Amino acid sequence: MTNQFKEKFLTHVRTLQDQITQEMQRLDPSLKLIEDQWQRNDHAGQPGGGGRTRAFTGEIFENAGVNTSCVFGKIDPVFASKLQGTGDEMWAAGISLILHPRNPRVPTVHANFRMIEQGSKVWFGGGADLTPFYPHEDDFRHFHGTWKKAAGEHYAAMKKECDQYFVNQHRDGEMRGIGGLFFDGYNSGNMEADFAMVTELSKQFIPSYFPLVEKRVNEDFTAEDEDFQLHRRGRYVEFNLLHDRGTLFGLKTNGRVDSILISLPARCKFTYQYAPAVGSPHAKMLSYYRPQQWA
Amino acid sequence: MTNQFKEKFLTHVRTLQDQITQEMQRLDPSLKLIEDQWQRNDHAGQPGGGGRTRAFTGEIFENAGVNTSCVFGKIDPVFASKLQGTGDEMWAAGISLILHPRNPRVPTVHANFRMIEQGSKVWFGGGADLTPFYPHEDDFRHFHGTWKKAAGEHYAAMKKECDQYFVNQHRDGEMRGIGGLFFDGYNSGNMEADFAMVTELSKQFIPSYFPLVEKRVNEDFTAEDEDFQLHRRGRYVEFNLLHDRGTLFGLKTNGRVDSILISLPARCKFTYQYAPAVGSPHAKMLSYYRPQQWA
Repeated sequence: MTNQFKEKFLTHVRTLQDQITQEMQRLDPSLKLIEDQWQRNDHAGQPGGGGRTRAFTGEIFENAGVNTSCVFGKIDPVFASKLQGTGDEMWAAGISLILHPRNPRVPTVHANFRMIEQGSKVWFGGGADLTPFYPHEDDFRHFHGTWKKAAGEHYAAMKKECDQYFVNQHRDGEMRGIGGLFFDGYNSGNMEADFAMVTELSKQFIPSYFPLVEKRVNEDFTAEDEDFQLHRRGRYVEFNLLHDRGTLFGLKTNGRVDSILISLPARCKFTYQYAPAVGSPHAKMLSYYRPQQWA
Repeated sequence: MTNQFKEKFLTHVRTLQDQITQEMQRLDPSLKLIEDQWQRNDHAGQPGGGGRTRAFTGEIFENAGVNTSCVFGKIDPVFASKLQGTGDEMWAAGISLILHPRNPRVPTVHANFRMIEQGSKVWFGGGADLTPFYPHEDDFRHFHGTWKKAAGEHYAAMKKECDQYFVNQHRDGEMRGIGGLFFDGYNSGNMEADFAMVTELSKQFIPSYFPLVEKRVNEDFTAEDEDFQLHRRGRYVEFNLLHDRGTLFGLKTNGRVDSILISLPARCKFTYQYAPAVGSPHAKMLSYYRPQQWA
């Protein structure tokens, strides 16, 4: 029965990848797309699946990656012992995306949804989180509201996990953005129900985010807005390279480097003891990069 | 006797910090300096020394940090057991610097020199490495030549260690730059000789690097030069956050974050599968980010 869901999940994420691509192309007619289909060998040197990486650059989406992959086969036994399943054979499929808009009034977004099988265990993981640069509180309520409605009884726990995960611990616990949902190792014992929940959640990505792009993309912005955005992108880089388990996992297991580091922003800034002007909208944003209720 | 050398080493690195500061100010009259004196507590909550951080921004040196510190006291026993010495008390002093020039024809440079005591053991570490963005081979020969002359019989081993250390392993073994010197755990059994060697080496930083700034700073550069520089700075960020032991050590031991991450460049770029134009001076540079003899 598991095999049937694996097949369905892979079809689902590939369809979602196409839908998100179309939505981006609709919003940004300047968008250029590089698609790379890649394959890998497993730990034993046997064919181990691969993926479809889509790298975008455009006027609205300065840079973005919307990737799917399906990998399988033998894994390093030392590494295998640290995972939740059993044995050294694995199957994993998922979609992972990150969009860095050019206009600082439009938030950056990240999402991923994955299904993993290791030996006799199967589990789901995923989530979506928003990194805004301007205090459009309505947008934060829209994003969290969409996920709250979709996740229902799971929202509180998944939001909390997100608040705890996307954190620059070395920056005194400052979050990368304003959170969203995060879950891992999800298996309720009813695969049909879990599969339905995760695929339904993943379908909420489009309505959770793209309305914010449409609403804000023509908003004028200032040099200060952009300066703040570029510095926050710097913090994004710090999180991804210092703390993100997915990134470090991928790099340590000889993942496809270009597909992993597609998450980094096209441009960013680092300044010693950077701080936005007192009383500015950007100073206000700093108070929002801490756990709080938005829905 | 150790205490006498500790005192002398601290005086030495502070003097060197002043000399390097003066040299930078002489070359870049626009240079702005923020100096922060900071203090820390040790693992037991007792006063544990501190440092003098100097953060620079200017027309020639877009951003730079020239830091000294002297820290001491109890350290985390788990962490202590991973170090080369004995016991959970430590003393460490050093100078650490990184200069990111604006003009891509001028190389970025990093250096540090340190003396460490843990229990009954004392050792020295340090080095200097160059990250050029343009194939001015004469400059590479000058930099390596200076260090070869200074390090004498130690050059070959220290150069090799440098070639092996400043490497983005996740980028197929590509070096951060063109290397230089690197050594750690240095103790020949003759502290007077070791102290003399390390302090003499550190004095070579000024003649190894600043003549290259004077020679190249007024050279015209192209948009392509800058684009290449900004992408190589991106690789610099990848190395510092993913691989650099000093950075990860500092962040894991609750070091002063702003002083540690002063190493990151003011601006940088990331592009999916970035590659310089075939036949360009920048494509030529890529072949130089691999171990080779320059002196």
